[in-house]
Amino acid sequence: MLHVTDDLLEGLAAAVGERQVLVDDDVRAPFESDWTGRYRGAARAVVRPADAHEVAAVLAACRAHGAPVVPQGGNTGMVGAGVPRGGEVVLSTARLTELGPVDRASAQVTAGAGVTLARVQDSARAAGLDAGVDFAARDSATVGGLAATNAGGIRAMRYGTVRARVAGLQAVLADGSIIERPTLLKDNAGYDLSALLVGSEGTLGIITAVRWRLVPRLTSRVAALIGLRSLDQAADLLADVRPRLPSLDAAEFLSDEGLQLVLDHLGLPAPVPTRSPVYVLLECAALADPTDELAEALAQAGIEDAVVADDSAERERLWRFREAHTEALSAAGVPHKMDVGVPLARLAEFAERVRGEVARLAPDARVILFGHLGDGNVHVNVLDLEPGDDAVDEAVLRVAAACDGTISAEHGVGVLKARWLELVRSPGELRAMAQIKRALDPDGLLNPGVMLP
Amino acid sequence: MLHVTDDLLEGLAAAVGERQVLVDDDVRAPFESDWTGRYRGAARAVVRPADAHEVAAVLAACRAHGAPVVPQGGNTGMVGAGVPRGGEVVLSTARLTELGPVDRASAQVTAGAGVTLARVQDSARAAGLDAGVDFAARDSATVGGLAATNAGGIRAMRYGTVRARVAGLQAVLADGSIIERPTLLKDNAGYDLSALLVGSEGTLGIITAVRWRLVPRLTSRVAALIGLRSLDQAADLLADVRPRLPSLDAAEFLSDEGLQLVLDHLGLPAPVPTRSPVYVLLECAALADPTDELAEALAQAGIEDAVVADDSAERERLWRFREAHTEALSAAGVPHKMDVGVPLARLAEFAERVRGEVARLAPDARVILFGHLGDGNVHVNVLDLEPGDDAVDEAVLRVAAACDGTISAEHGVGVLKARWLELVRSPGELRAMAQIKRALDPDGLLNPGVMLP
Repeated sequence: MLHVTDDLLEGLAAAVGERQVLVDDDVRAPFESDWTGRYRGAARAVVRPADAHEVAAVLAACRAHGAPVVPQGGNTGMVGAGVPRGGEVVLSTARLTELGPVDRASAQVTAGAGVTLARVQDSARAAGLDAGVDFAARDSATVGGLAATNAGGIRAMRYGTVRARVAGLQAVLADGSIIERPTLLKDNAGYDLSALLVGSEGTLGIITAVRWRLVPRLTSRVAALIGLRSLDQAADLLADVRPRLPSLDAAEFLSDEGLQLVLDHLGLPAPVPTRSPVYVLLECAALADPTDELAEALAQAGIEDAVVADDSAERERLWRFREAHTEALSAAGVPHKMDVGVPLARLAEFAERVRGEVARLAPDARVILFGHLGDGNVHVNVLDLEPGDDAVDEAVLRVAAACDGTISAEHGVGVLKARWLELVRSPGELRAMAQIKRALDPDGLLNPGVMLP
Repeated sequence: MLHVTDDLLEGLAAAVGERQVLVDDDVRAPFESDWTGRYRGAARAVVRPADAHEVAAVLAACRAHGAPVVPQGGNTGMVGAGVPRGGEVVLSTARLTELGPVDRASAQVTAGAGVTLARVQDSARAAGLDAGVDFAARDSATVGGLAATNAGGIRAMRYGTVRARVAGLQAVLADGSIIERPTLLKDNAGYDLSALLVGSEGTLGIITAVRWRLVPRLTSRVAALIGLRSLDQAADLLADVRPRLPSLDAAEFLSDEGLQLVLDHLGLPAPVPTRSPVYVLLECAALADPTDELAEALAQAGIEDAVVADDSAERERLWRFREAHTEALSAAGVPHKMDVGVPLARLAEFAERVRGEVARLAPDARVILFGHLGDGNVHVNVLDLEPGDDAVDEAVLRVAAACDGTISAEHGVGVLKARWLELVRSPGELRAMAQIKRALDPDGLLNPGVMLP
């Protein structure tokens, strides 16, 4: 039972019902920190609206009482964008869990913001289609959060980021307007407000439902792990095989240092007979078995030694060397993690400069690089640094910017990187962003402190 | 030689050089009307900047002298968005024709706004890739215009509209700021201003270059023409085959009235032994021949009579029945053309209600419907109406809106449909659009009269 203590809480209770306004410390707690423990803040309250109209009513109450709002989905973010900084109202999408039927003709499905990625995947697969996005947090991450952060993952090289999966969305703007562009792939009637909200990290509106574009379900898969001399050779290999492999679904890279860390952590032997400085993991997916297609493309690229896995257990074994990086790194210490992107032509230069900067600033630190080769998305991990020291973090972001890259490829800006946005966005771009923010949220109600410097 | 007659022209000449400021009536004329002849207006001048910096200088001169600007690409638009209304400066992208090398590793290419779609296609194909967008105006339509209008076409069901092809773009805002998000598929550093500009029809900025995401080049194609009882059956067929056909590249529909018009116009026999009220044209594209895949999917859907074309001459012959609709309609009169979209589940209802409305308002008029089944994009053509009478046009748009559809699927809003935008956009959405426009273009410099009511 809620004990109403002030006008704001009364207004929130009127908006969503008393039961859905959480004020007790222990009940609020799970909403007040993220899974990494890096971000933490006390909320005035946590509210759980049931639909877009209740979201609008929550925003009206918050506006009336000058209370800023932090929207929160599955709370799996990496940059602190969904965690209160202190004193905000957390608007949880946990009850927006309606999942409509899959429309097989248009290959779309409507999901409430609080539906997990895994539910969308299951529902799509049952209809012979697929979600087109996948990553490890699939059981917690929600489609509202995926859209608000323009999530990436390993299939982006084929299907694009979540931006490309959003046919339209329903959202509530700061003034309480409900916007909808719900079902049509082609809809050129006015500015695409959906497209603006995708990736805006809850600073321009609260996404309440997403119309998701599905992709064909491709059940025949083959993977190959290839040892290479350098990142330049990795980029060349991708340039060579990509036009020959319409079925290419993922192209990941790892380093020998990263592989060794994983091998030590898992107690496994190396998956390759001869060690190389760099490894590339390719996966093809099609309706008919793409093994011959992959083998031929590798042969034409002059690759003689590849570990090819065409059954699912073998494929999973190969992927484990890539996917276990996160746990192996955590087991080895508290890594500083920087999610950046660079043009593939400058990937090798970026890696070399990063290693040089870290050697200069922290000679004893270890650098582990891995990521999504297909989109130049590098996860830079530095071990054996002081937790609070961000000199290396900033140096890495500056190198990414100097290589025509971005300081955030897929994790977003959040509170973590807002102060560094100017490294990659011009004064004119920052001004335009601030103008848009001011136009749509003049009172700064939505997720203040996130994204914009 | 330019005879400078006022301060504006002097400012423009300083921005781009005298030779690139066109003021003579006969030189300006091609820029002052569209290819349909429906839109026409006198320009103060036509300027042809050579790069983004010159575009910024042009905008500064126009701002200083209160002269509105109409950006113009290949001038192939359908809604009057690229033609002066009277007194504006036309900013032509005709000299922004630089086309970079195809980056095969990232499957991207950078094209100046004035590069034609055909050049992008040729360049991509030479590198073993493809543009992922195609339509009849490919030799004139430019990538700047494609992005500014979020062009669609027949491949959108597989690859999305042009929005999905834009990895990033370079553009000049009204205040002269040059924004760039040039090369990275994953770049979550701030609001995606590119995504906002795509489809904004030149009202928020002038697009000067596009980083284009290419797709695999698929050289094996097969098409099938299938006669069906109704549009409902067409939607059901698509729902049935779509999950089975990852290679599905296009799904078009036509009516028997439309087919007869084409047959009469071309003097050809019917392509099918038995006539049906509705026809669906499916095309699959893959690296390996998709004929068996298509045949199996049709058999599983219970389709026994399909005309299947697996060589390119036969395919072209089938496509001719769909593509000749435009010329057959023009030969039969001056059709009123309405480009709308509806959810597939309501396509049959939409068609019936449109026929009812036209019968009520103009009993002697003929209605021909055809379009892109895969994305619910219907091209409504009404023959034997008075040219200036738009009662039927408005009735059709109202039916589209009533069927949860859109008044513009792929042609855009322009000056043609601005007054009807409220049929499909809520007051809150229209307010948000106006707020964004005012924030980024407070003086109303860019393409006034287009899109916003």
